Parts: sequence; C-alpha cells; structure tokens
Amino acid sequence: MLHASMLIECIPNVSEGRRLDVVSRMADAIRAVPGVRLLDHSSDASHNRSVFTLVGDAAGVEQAVLALYERAAADIDLRTHRGEHPRIGAVDVVPFVPIEGVTMADCVALAKKVGGAVAERFGIPVFLYEEASANPARKNLEDIRRGEFEGLVEKMAKPEWAPDFGPRAPHPSAGASVIGARMPLIAYNINLATDRLDVAKKIAAAIRHSSGGYRFVKAMGIALADRGIVQVSMNLTNYEKTPMHRVFETVAREAARYGVAVLESEIVGLVPSAALTSAAEFYLQLEGFNANQVLENRLRNA
Amino acid sequence: MLHASMLIECIPNVSEGRRLDVVSRMADAIRAVPGVRLLDHSSDASHNRSVFTLVGDAAGVEQAVLALYERAAADIDLRTHRGEHPRIGAVDVVPFVPIEGVTMADCVALAKKVGGAVAERFGIPVFLYEEASANPARKNLEDIRRGEFEGLVEKMAKPEWAPDFGPRAPHPSAGASVIGARMPLIAYNINLATDRLDVAKKIAAAIRHSSGGYRFVKAMGIALADRGIVQVSMNLTNYEKTPMHRVFETVAREAARYGVAVLESEIVGLVPSAALTSAAEFYLQLEGFNANQVLENRLRNA
Repeated sequence: MLHASMLIECIPNVSEGRRLDVVSRMADAIRAVPGVRLLDHSSDASHNRSVFTLVGDAAGVEQAVLALYERAAADIDLRTHRGEHPRIGAVDVVPFVPIEGVTMADCVALAKKVGGAVAERFGIPVFLYEEASANPARKNLEDIRRGEFEGLVEKMAKPEWAPDFGPRAPHPSAGASVIGARMPLIAYNINLATDRLDVAKKIAAAIRHSSGGYRFVKAMGIALADRGIVQVSMNLTNYEKTPMHRVFETVAREAARYGVAVLESEIVGLVPSAALTSAAEFYLQLEGFNANQVLENRLRNA
Repeated sequence: MLHASMLIECIPNVSEGRRLDVVSRMADAIRAVPGVRLLDHSSDASHNRSVFTLVGDAAGVEQAVLALYERAAADIDLRTHRGEHPRIGAVDVVPFVPIEGVTMADCVALAKKVGGAVAERFGIPVFLYEEASANPARKNLEDIRRGEFEGLVEKMAKPEWAPDFGPRAPHPSAGASVIGARMPLIAYNINLATDRLDVAKKIAAAIRHSSGGYRFVKAMGIALADRGIVQVSMNLTNYEKTPMHRVFETVAREAARYGVAVLESEIVGLVPSAALTSAAEFYLQLEGFNANQVLENRLRNA
C-alpha cells in the first residue's frame, strides 16, 4: 500500500503514442518499482505521445522516472519521430506535483536530483522549468520547447539556452528533457448556452493571465460544433491561489453581460479533493472548516 | 493499515462521562482489536456520557463493539448513573454506518448479528432501530428511549415493547441497548446575521421533516447569546437524498424573506467527502463528474 504520509504525483510525457508495445514496456518499468502506483496512462496516435500518471514517495518516484528514461532512451529515436504535438525529447516533460505531506520545495529538490541523474546516467541535457527554475525566461514550458527537437542544436549553442544539467548539445536520439515542479493542474471547461464563439473568446480573454485575467488561468474560447454551443476551455495551474469557484463566478458574470447563461462545467481527468471542498466551503459559507473534518482524510491519517 | 475496500463506521454511545479511567479502559478495549481504528472519543461530564467513533470491516467492528459491551457491563451501573442526557443502557446506542464498499443492507445484517450476540453473551435486551428495524414505531431512537432506564421494567412489560433480542426485562445494572444502521449523519449549523430567535425558529420549522420540511432534516432554532446572533441547528440524516446545498439554499431564501442574511455555516465533527463534492457539483454545475476523478479516491482505489 501507499504511504499516505508522503505523496508526490508525477506526469511524464513521452514521445511515443503509436507503438503500443513500446508504451506498454514503459508502463511495466514504472509498475515494477515498489511503493509506486501507475494510476493512469494514455496514448495519442496523432500526437504520437503518451502521458503517464504515477504517485509515490520521493525515492519511489525518482526510481520509476529513471526506469522510464532508460526504456525511452532505448526505444525512441527523435530523428524519425513525427507527431502533431511539439516535443524536444524522448522523455519530453516530467513535472513533479506535491499532493500530501510534501512541500513545493521538496518537489523542486526532487526535480533537481532527477535532472542531475538523467544527465549523468544517460547523457541527456535537462532544462528545469516552472517552480524548479529560478530563471524567469525558463519557467514556461512553451519557451523551452520552442523550435522543437529539430532546432535544438542551434538553440542550445546560444549561451542563454545552456541546459541546467548535462551536455551543451542534445542527445542524438533522445534529444533533451524538461523537468520541474508545479501545482496540480485542473483541466476545467465551462460550456455556454450559446453558439456565439466571440462571446467564449471574449470571456477567455477576460479571465486568462496573459491578457489581464487571473494569475493562474490559461483559457481559450472554442466552438463545440456538434452540440451547437461554445466553451471556455481552461487550465487552472494553482487552484489554491486562483480557486475554481472564483473562475466559475467570473465566467458566469461575464457571460450574463452578453445575455448568455452557463450551461454546465466539466472537469477533465483528475482533481484534488481540496479543490472541490474549497468550492463547497465558499458556496456554503463554511466557517472554521478544516480538511481533517473530511471523514476520508481522517481515515487516511489514522 | 485499513482495507479501503470495506469500511463501516460505528459510533457507540456509552453512559459514562465522568470516570475517565473507565472510559480509557473502554477505548483500550476497542484499540486492541486488529483491523479497527478508534478515530475519536469524547466525554461529557454533565451528560455523563461518552461517544466513540471507530472504523473497520464488519468482523473487526463486531469484535470491537462486543469488547466494549464487556467492559461497560463490568464497569457501569445504571442504578447509580445520573446525567442530563436520556439513556436506557450502559452501552446506550450503537449505530453502524456504511462508508465504503458496503451497503446499508450489510450494516443492517451486522446490527442484527451484534444484537443477537449482545443478548446471548451478556443477557442484555436489544432494540433494533432506524434502518435495522422493520417496525415504523421502533425506527426512532427517541421513541425507544422514552421513559429512560428508570421506566424500562414497566415499558418492556407491554407487548409492543418486547425487545428484538434477549430477555423481556432489562439487565439489572446494564439496562437495555439500541442497535441499528443509518446513513452518516452530518451536524450542520447555519448562523444568521440577526438576533431574532423567532426567525431561526420559523426557518427550522420550515425545513425540518417533522413539520413539513425535507425528509432527512432535523432542525431547531437557537440563540447564540454570546455572539448576539441566532442559529438554525441541524442534523442531516441522509446527505444523498437531502443534500447540504439544498438545505443551505432553502435556509438562505427563507431568511431573505425576513430581510435576514446568512452569516456563515459550520460542520460540527466529521463529514463524508461525497457530501462536500456534491455541493461543489451543484454550484459549479459540473456535468458528468464522478467520484473516481477525485485524485485521493483514485489513490485509495489504486
């Protein structure tokens, strides 16, 4: 069983989504590590990419990620890899996420430790990102990945793109890797009872950080053509500092200004319990509530 | 560690809240049972009563409850017991509550099994209540307990008060016992921004089952004199069928009719995670959400 006392989530993104035997061997390598659970993995053929979700304590997660690198370095060659999703490496991105009994600082330390080990063992250059990077120009994954594997030799020759660990040039077949620490990300969509795409786009612009909205919201407006409605599609990158209820209420208020109602919202994938209970706390105006009152939390801590 | 696959909560109420050495020995008897966790226990001197909260699988909870009866029968004499809280037995009430991987029917079966064992081993008559009782006149704890220990000889002489298990007369020192099964109970209070007790009482009457309100709400209006406000104090006895958000919204709407606002609400003690996530689902208008999307649930089921 897992120790409830220390839990880190890790979501490695790997550049292989077509050869499912290769993906399956990587999943097996993770599962073989004691004290680590592989919660989920999914492969996308058009992206030619797979995403693994695993949890465990720091030592277990470290061992599982290194086992994944070993398999990926053996089985994936970026020189022949094609897919719609941008990527710079065989193991493209590895975020560590604090879930329980660990701090963000613990996850940053783990990212650096794993980064050093990946560089040393496999000769793969590593860029730190998000909370693990002290350099504002290198926090954003998109910035690091811009130019992709094919542009990596030229990019890494520039002084500002020296890696945090490992050689100054990409690994011939495995490229480079981005490793870091971040809060749990919530994929959250709000569907509007209208087909007016301009309304969804205006609301997305109003709430996302890049255009003046909330600090921890990424958003875009898209059409759900088959249903004849539009959606504000979001990533909430820190639900403690920009909580779901505030985003929901702001979207609903902005929509009302155009005479549009919220039809429904949806969470894609997993959500930390605390993100939902904090919404309940807000709407029920709960005072003095603490997480230890949740029966299941008490059970896990018993 | 506990098996996450089958969890029953049990909350025995015992007629001793002053001799803490006696309470402590009862707690030790519960703790000594493998696979059972004593989550909490608290004693009230003026009530002269203690409440234990334990969890485990059916076999473990049964064993722990029987160990508790053994200690209580040895240490408590109702003939000399005085306290403000109504009671008919040394172990006064024992509800079994389904938490995870068990049905209400499982808890009803367990209540009957334990009831039979208590009667046989200790000669204590047992009344089944709530979901464990098929008799509408004997579902309600207050009805069974009316007359208390002191009135028990006379009450049990009536044909309609024959016990479900055990002798037709109370045990001389341990009295009788009420054993049953019920949903988790949520102690939920809503504080109003007014000192008008009549408003709290009217709202309590509007929402409680006994006077025409929601099926699974017990409520009363009380004054919080030290704060100069009033409170609608509630027990929610089935949060699936009468959810928190519906109660909250109804109280807020009824209060508004008197020009009064909700100041805050509070949960006393433990609350099942599902009760809070269902509030989040309602307010965030979450469609297609399921409990397996909660990260912690996925971890426990992994």
